[in-house]
Amino acid sequence: MHVNSREAQYAVRGSVALKAMSIQKKLNSPEVSSLPFKSLISCNIGNPQALGQKPLTFVRQVAAACTYPELLNNSDMFPKDVVSRARAYLKSTDRGYGVGSYTDSHGLALVREEVARFIETRDGFPCDPNHIALTTGASEGVRRVIQALMATPTDGLMISAPQYPLYACSITMCGGNIVFYNLNEANQWTIDETELNRSYQEATSKGINVRGLVVINPGNPVGAVLTQDVIKSVISFANERNLLLFADEVYQANVYSDSKKFHSFKKCLRELQRDYPGQYDNQQLVSFHTISKGLIGECGQRGGYVEYIGFSEAMMLQFRKLAASTLSSNTVGQIIMGIMVNPPQPGDESYTLYATETEQIYESLKRRADKLYKKLNELEGVSCQPIEGAMYAFPTITLPQQAIQEAKSRGIPADEMYCLDMVEEAGIVTVPGSGFGQIDGTYHFRTTILPSEEEIDQVIERLGKFHSKWLARYGGLTRTDISNGEFRSIRTLEAS
Amino acid sequence: MHVNSREAQYAVRGSVALKAMSIQKKLNSPEVSSLPFKSLISCNIGNPQALGQKPLTFVRQVAAACTYPELLNNSDMFPKDVVSRARAYLKSTDRGYGVGSYTDSHGLALVREEVARFIETRDGFPCDPNHIALTTGASEGVRRVIQALMATPTDGLMISAPQYPLYACSITMCGGNIVFYNLNEANQWTIDETELNRSYQEATSKGINVRGLVVINPGNPVGAVLTQDVIKSVISFANERNLLLFADEVYQANVYSDSKKFHSFKKCLRELQRDYPGQYDNQQLVSFHTISKGLIGECGQRGGYVEYIGFSEAMMLQFRKLAASTLSSNTVGQIIMGIMVNPPQPGDESYTLYATETEQIYESLKRRADKLYKKLNELEGVSCQPIEGAMYAFPTITLPQQAIQEAKSRGIPADEMYCLDMVEEAGIVTVPGSGFGQIDGTYHFRTTILPSEEEIDQVIERLGKFHSKWLARYGGLTRTDISNGEFRSIRTLEAS
Repeated sequence: MHVNSREAQYAVRGSVALKAMSIQKKLNSPEVSSLPFKSLISCNIGNPQALGQKPLTFVRQVAAACTYPELLNNSDMFPKDVVSRARAYLKSTDRGYGVGSYTDSHGLALVREEVARFIETRDGFPCDPNHIALTTGASEGVRRVIQALMATPTDGLMISAPQYPLYACSITMCGGNIVFYNLNEANQWTIDETELNRSYQEATSKGINVRGLVVINPGNPVGAVLTQDVIKSVISFANERNLLLFADEVYQANVYSDSKKFHSFKKCLRELQRDYPGQYDNQQLVSFHTISKGLIGECGQRGGYVEYIGFSEAMMLQFRKLAASTLSSNTVGQIIMGIMVNPPQPGDESYTLYATETEQIYESLKRRADKLYKKLNELEGVSCQPIEGAMYAFPTITLPQQAIQEAKSRGIPADEMYCLDMVEEAGIVTVPGSGFGQIDGTYHFRTTILPSEEEIDQVIERLGKFHSKWLARYGGLTRTDISNGEFRSIRTLEAS
Repeated sequence: MHVNSREAQYAVRGSVALKAMSIQKKLNSPEVSSLPFKSLISCNIGNPQALGQKPLTFVRQVAAACTYPELLNNSDMFPKDVVSRARAYLKSTDRGYGVGSYTDSHGLALVREEVARFIETRDGFPCDPNHIALTTGASEGVRRVIQALMATPTDGLMISAPQYPLYACSITMCGGNIVFYNLNEANQWTIDETELNRSYQEATSKGINVRGLVVINPGNPVGAVLTQDVIKSVISFANERNLLLFADEVYQANVYSDSKKFHSFKKCLRELQRDYPGQYDNQQLVSFHTISKGLIGECGQRGGYVEYIGFSEAMMLQFRKLAASTLSSNTVGQIIMGIMVNPPQPGDESYTLYATETEQIYESLKRRADKLYKKLNELEGVSCQPIEGAMYAFPTITLPQQAIQEAKSRGIPADEMYCLDMVEEAGIVTVPGSGFGQIDGTYHFRTTILPSEEEIDQVIERLGKFHSKWLARYGGLTRTDISNGEFRSIRTLEAS
């Protein structure tokens, strides 16, 4: 097997997820289980509907009508706007024959138009539908651009530590070099230009040709929302070094903090171009979005888009060719993307229901983010930044020296041992910080905020009991451990 | 851009398809077009529903019910077997919450079971559902295995000339070496072991480390169905050289010849293992299937599977990790795969309709294959092997020397020039043979058999008129051209 394939890691579905699978088998078997819980709670993947979030009615009605258009013949079946929307999507398929045909490699023209209008409204700057490509989730688009960018074995891509494992995995698979820059945990996981510089210089001095820079905003796994100023400083940094910017903006609808707002990289770039004529003309940017997150959470339907900003028509033809080799993304996923970016409007028959459903989901996510953040900070040696956005908490955990030694002797990261024990003893599936990248000597884990409001109380209870038992097993935390923990926060700050 | 990405070619959506897109824009515009036709006929892609093939009712009813389960509350809406099947699939999703969740990386367990039972029934040998992975069409599986296999810049993969462009494109993208072996056109595009040997030796002598061998059966683009004897000889060839075998069997339900039958590589391998104990134990094989072809033709729903045969559990874990980095294929596509391999049975409420619909599609494809084959052979200088299976004709065309010279001066293959002119003058979209690989000095094009029965007559008429006009424009065919054509058939035979 290719060494790149062998070495690529994908922690979100790594050792802890595999252990969870074998525990699930035990729970399913008719034999009486000796496990101290009756069910696993999956907090490892941002998969809202798997934890009970209901699909939006309008989305599923349009998707079902497009799938089986005979449903449109029954005039009482669906609201009028479902019928007209489904007919419009069906008409936009190849010769109007429906969702069973491959679409254009970059997706249905109607949906690309809807996406372009959405981006224009969001940013206040024009958007060309010919620079939009619909993809199988956001991840296909990410892989496609990374594959196109990593040209020689010395090429590298800057990604945050911590990062979403898709990036490290894709870079490794393409034979490129991972160049980590540390997020500043002590300052709400922001991005500091001095740290970007350190990371870039270090990579360059090793002979790595840095080609691009990835930012996830709102952050996965860290849950932070970047300010406009930070975004503009990142753009300037990339612009001065001729780096392709990757803006992973799949959580743009998931901002819970009242004091923060989502700002797109594209809007910030266009403002810089307006304010500093000529200086930012060559900056290239790709922005990713998905139907899997937001308030729609249609992970299983696999829809996404990439917007290519600042690319020539010749480059667009190249991207189109790469897209063609995968034929096209699934048509219903494309249609759901169209609905997400162009939902029912006031006056439409489905508007009230759509607005109610999305608001309930939003308010509930916001409550759960707040609750989890507070409860995690109550645990001994655990410190969690506010969950401003996205779907995750990424707390620092201070671990007893005995535990760290034990993990060393087993040859696994200490937070992986912690998470493996957590799934076995508490039935809570999380992802160790080591799977995302973190400063050496620090330990974290990622949990989603997605269990239902009832279940999240259970998560907190099981986690709390497990945590104190586990600390005690390894001799508890000493004053030194805790002051090391404090030292770490300071060091994180200094490193930036 | 990565040189591999830049150099990768994908002819099926190449220059002719791009020209067709610009012509379509002209046809759509309100201005009076000067084009000699009112609509394009797309014969370039195996995309049956885009040419009017109707989706199967049972498939779409189950898919719609899974998409919007509220439909199941209306007891009159669907046949009983649709309801029970939809409920079973819904139950098999994560905690029963439906198609909006990511599935297991390798797909829903219920569907993998259905696939395994289908393969057992087809072959008469056991099949382990844990060695099945559901994928985004067959092409995702193909890319995944090629990416895992191409380990160093000297690694190579043997593929047929002509081949389906996905293979050459994927090998190039992964930095591997394409090793062509020629199919024997004169002998109904069969595979000769002497030619396999020649190709292997030549590659080895150039320092290429041949790692695998791809066979497409029934053949794309050639439409041939391999005999058991040929398949077994290919397996022996691979086995002796420790090559991973790729069996692209996506057209297994598309056999039209009364004298031919589909035999799977897996069945042939198992028979060899049974008949020659110990000799074939280490042979590894991957077999691909899809919902895009067959009689179901659900291209836009993007479902496929790969069966891994002869791989250790450790290797299966590696493939699972690669799958995890794409999260999972779309759930509805997986469900449609389940239906395709486990259709309604006699006694089920939907059986008669399902059987009628699939039989009509099969019989019509068979008539169109036969008609196209006969009509193509009536054209001057065109020679086409019988279309035994799949969805394509791949005729040899003898071109006038003047045309060949003209193409040379324009720097494009002569059959590409022919196909570009065909789309412009006759509105028929095909793919030049040069996009698939062919013996130097030979020219072909690929056309699907998929236009409807009414439209296929138009294809034949337009093509016939275009062909004679085009030959005349370049001075017509001389005796030398034709005898060269004959000479080519003989040379093809000798080369094997």
